Amino acid sequence: MKFNQAIPHPQSVFWQEDHLVLLDQRRLPTETVYLHLTTPEEVWEAIATLAVRGAPAIGIAAVYGLYLGVRGLPDQEEIFWAELERIADFLNSARPTAVNLSWALKRVVNKAKTFKGEPVSSVKQAILNEATAIHEEDVRVCRQIGEHLLTLLQDGMGILTHCNAGGLATGAYGTALAPLYLARERGWKFKVFADETRPVLQGARLTAYELMQAGIDVTLICDNMAGAVMKQGWVQAVIVGTDRVAANGDVANKIGTYSVAVLAKAHGIPFYVAAPASSIDLETETGEQIPIEQRSPEEVVAGMGKPIAPEGVQVYNPAFDVTPAEYVTAIITEYGVIRAPYRENLKRVLNG
Amino acid sequence: MKFNQAIPHPQSVFWQEDHLVLLDQRRLPTETVYLHLTTPEEVWEAIATLAVRGAPAIGIAAVYGLYLGVRGLPDQEEIFWAELERIADFLNSARPTAVNLSWALKRVVNKAKTFKGEPVSSVKQAILNEATAIHEEDVRVCRQIGEHLLTLLQDGMGILTHCNAGGLATGAYGTALAPLYLARERGWKFKVFADETRPVLQGARLTAYELMQAGIDVTLICDNMAGAVMKQGWVQAVIVGTDRVAANGDVANKIGTYSVAVLAKAHGIPFYVAAPASSIDLETETGEQIPIEQRSPEEVVAGMGKPIAPEGVQVYNPAFDVTPAEYVTAIITEYGVIRAPYRENLKRVLNG
Repeated sequence: MKFNQAIPHPQSVFWQEDHLVLLDQRRLPTETVYLHLTTPEEVWEAIATLAVRGAPAIGIAAVYGLYLGVRGLPDQEEIFWAELERIADFLNSARPTAVNLSWALKRVVNKAKTFKGEPVSSVKQAILNEATAIHEEDVRVCRQIGEHLLTLLQDGMGILTHCNAGGLATGAYGTALAPLYLARERGWKFKVFADETRPVLQGARLTAYELMQAGIDVTLICDNMAGAVMKQGWVQAVIVGTDRVAANGDVANKIGTYSVAVLAKAHGIPFYVAAPASSIDLETETGEQIPIEQRSPEEVVAGMGKPIAPEGVQVYNPAFDVTPAEYVTAIITEYGVIRAPYRENLKRVLNG
Repeated sequence: MKFNQAIPHPQSVFWQEDHLVLLDQRRLPTETVYLHLTTPEEVWEAIATLAVRGAPAIGIAAVYGLYLGVRGLPDQEEIFWAELERIADFLNSARPTAVNLSWALKRVVNKAKTFKGEPVSSVKQAILNEATAIHEEDVRVCRQIGEHLLTLLQDGMGILTHCNAGGLATGAYGTALAPLYLARERGWKFKVFADETRPVLQGARLTAYELMQAGIDVTLICDNMAGAVMKQGWVQAVIVGTDRVAANGDVANKIGTYSVAVLAKAHGIPFYVAAPASSIDLETETGEQIPIEQRSPEEVVAGMGKPIAPEGVQVYNPAFDVTPAEYVTAIITEYGVIRAPYRENLKRVLNG
């Protein structure tokens, strides 16, 4: 999928004539630099070093990287199929735990295999087509989530979000931020509050950046200001993304999401979770079964350029927290708005 | 008041034989450097540049600074009294809005005036004595607050605090942190969680520092982790300081305090406010009348050594928030534990 003029925010990943372009997220928000990549090695490096981040965006970059690796191969079928597998494995090793990465690569390899027997040049074209299809589907899912979220919102509302579930993390539009871009197309105006999202500051570095680039009214706040902002009546809806939704509707997302959910409930503000169906995991019964990654104290203590705490201080630094379903007003997927009871309704939507 | 071996944390202000010593808080937590000051000009500079901070500590530093300014004056009464007023005004200009600063200076000047007619050398001694008395009273008030808070706590509890209402901000012991030091004297062990307290990071830089120096078990968390920590059952009490308590029990304190109070209530955790009687303002009817200082966006965006958000981003950066009395389990002063109804009980304690 090529660069799309109609998309209002900086696009983190797109195909430009004969190569892959990535917005270098390591240098945001102070520098906007695009990387032009022509080999799978470059794509591997970009994924491993977080030039591209966000599960959907990583998957999309990887499958374009796979095409870059096979397009110059000779027409000998034996070499071609062996190389295809090798390059897919290689790209998959860039971030071993990213589920979207292996899912997207497998999907393209499997698609290619359905063309076995046809000329190698046709297979190559099928690989590019499938990569493009994955990208386009992701954008479509994001727009659908945005459309469904918009049915819950009104022009002029104040919206608070946490972390970055935006266009930079996906093929385009994002999940939690998608309704903001669609509302802009309709001429609606929201007033957005972006939690900076310590320790890694995705809200300050990425959400504020992409919304500003799109001309959307965004105000950056420190995470501890969310309560004070809600108390003043400035927030009519909270919208966040998710890493995984359990079968009972418990939501794992970036650390701090749970505090925001409790604050929203205390102020009578609806708390919405934007969740592609792919992030709903019916095999995980409840949030208690979702493992919470603990990350390095360095992120907290030294992540902002200079040490901010005494050397050797004990630090608790979980990457995620779990928001119990009772705090979740609705879960919004590409199929529509899902409300409690989640155990029944999530299953019906996913299996229906 | 001299350096006191019995005080377990770094002392931010003390008198050493013939001069004032300040712990340079600008260089914390990475460097522990003491400033040795012998002139009021040096003390002015230290207050203005935040080498010393915290309302009580500033007041104490200033009155020792006043003595440093007058002790070398000649015995001519006319010159002495003119200089005393001039130096007091000069020191008072270091931070024009700090109430404790002008209160402490006025108290010493007024005390000196009761010695008018006596030899100048006696007046000088009276000034040093009054400065020492102010310092000693502050330490006594802090210890009394700590003792009263301890009646609400038990050995082994998890305690969460926000910002720094500790020994560094006062003559010694602090207010919210006083019970932690007194508990240590009794051999009790608490597990303390310190919110880092964005944007200026007083929790990370100062609270974590002084508790670690005292050998108290402290774990640093980002502000947005407070909810996740409470949800795990690790916190049995929240203790914070205050800048001002209104007549109805509403509490102004560092931004983020309100969010912590809401989270504490949602988890059934008591929320205690340590408040010297001097911070209770019966002339302010409710928290709505307390003006909230708005501070520079730079604190949020560039305060940690490198820019963390896009240039020109809108920022909401209030220095304080107001926690309504309904979230406050008790207000603890040097006179004891005060509970709701606050309008009656605060008045009774202060006027009684």
